[in-house]
Amino acid sequence: MKKLKIPEETIERLPLYLRRSKELSGNGEDFVSSQEFVEKLPGISSDNLRKDLSFFGNFGVKGQGYNTNQLLSRLRSILKLQADTKVALIGVGNLGSALLTHKEFSRWGFMITAAFDKDPRVVGSQIGGISIQPIQGLNQTIQNEAINVAMIAVPAGEAQSVANSVVSAGVKGILNFAPVLLDVPQEVQVEQVDITSKLKELNYYLEG
Amino acid sequence: MKKLKIPEETIERLPLYLRRSKELSGNGEDFVSSQEFVEKLPGISSDNLRKDLSFFGNFGVKGQGYNTNQLLSRLRSILKLQADTKVALIGVGNLGSALLTHKEFSRWGFMITAAFDKDPRVVGSQIGGISIQPIQGLNQTIQNEAINVAMIAVPAGEAQSVANSVVSAGVKGILNFAPVLLDVPQEVQVEQVDITSKLKELNYYLEG
Repeated sequence: MKKLKIPEETIERLPLYLRRSKELSGNGEDFVSSQEFVEKLPGISSDNLRKDLSFFGNFGVKGQGYNTNQLLSRLRSILKLQADTKVALIGVGNLGSALLTHKEFSRWGFMITAAFDKDPRVVGSQIGGISIQPIQGLNQTIQNEAINVAMIAVPAGEAQSVANSVVSAGVKGILNFAPVLLDVPQEVQVEQVDITSKLKELNYYLEG
Repeated sequence: MKKLKIPEETIERLPLYLRRSKELSGNGEDFVSSQEFVEKLPGISSDNLRKDLSFFGNFGVKGQGYNTNQLLSRLRSILKLQADTKVALIGVGNLGSALLTHKEFSRWGFMITAAFDKDPRVVGSQIGGISIQPIQGLNQTIQNEAINVAMIAVPAGEAQSVANSVVSAGVKGILNFAPVLLDVPQEVQVEQVDITSKLKELNYYLEG
């Protein structure tokens, strides 16, 4: 992993800055202060913003604030969102089906190009324009199509063995929806989408 | 919001510590060092762990490490996960349907007790044992059932107006799946489940 000096918290906030820049630029707001910028980003201060962006060069313009269009295009480039990224989906249950039809992915250059399931009743069916393949073909397809990213949406008990398979097929990044912590080699990056953890966080803030 | 002095990053990590404690305790590992504890928690150092837990009292035992069972029960209590929390779901498309059948929620005391959609073809159907109600009844039901938490799984363009409705009905915490930043009163806590942002984060780490 390169760029290890940039804190993970910073990287985690970049997509939020990207979303906010897009919104502001879409609203025709060409320049905003750091204060206005973070207004709709809960838990992020203007200090966070300034410090985070400082890792990547000079952004703000003195007396004018941030140029939202410029910020948008530079964040896209930092996050390497100019080219398409191929994604494999493993597990086409309820959540997997929802992911296959999630329109937001393609808007940002992520394309699910292959989907796998072990259930013979699901294999062969088409969801969101993608034909579901048997899990046995996973290794071959990921290698042939040079897929770098996998989304794992299988039950908790199967997630680790699926992770092993995609890693040995060459996947470098995993988005894991299963509520289990994966063991992977150090060079593989895992992001956890943990819906229940988010609910627990919410719960903490509720009174009573 | 009480306890404002505890950093949000700390609160965000507590559910991960909870999950890890549960795993270790389930494996029969009664005591672990902070180093072992964070081993499967990417991006979290043993320093983070110690500092985070220090907000809530004394946890580690000198020379023995952490008692995983004790940690589990104290984290449950800090996150108020002993009693059931009622949750309303708004938007029963693909993602909403997946949420309705997500077994992990109830395991942690979250119960979706009401679900709403505006599509007359969906209203009246049953998913995961819940009968889908028309969106018009949202205010009434949330008030009558004293529901505190809402999950918003509607398209981006409708999310803000749904947020306004649930807030005026008395909801204090929102888990937002729509890719849009919500404007809510300060006393309402919003957590964003932003799948595309996670993909963008992953992308940053991929080489080439």
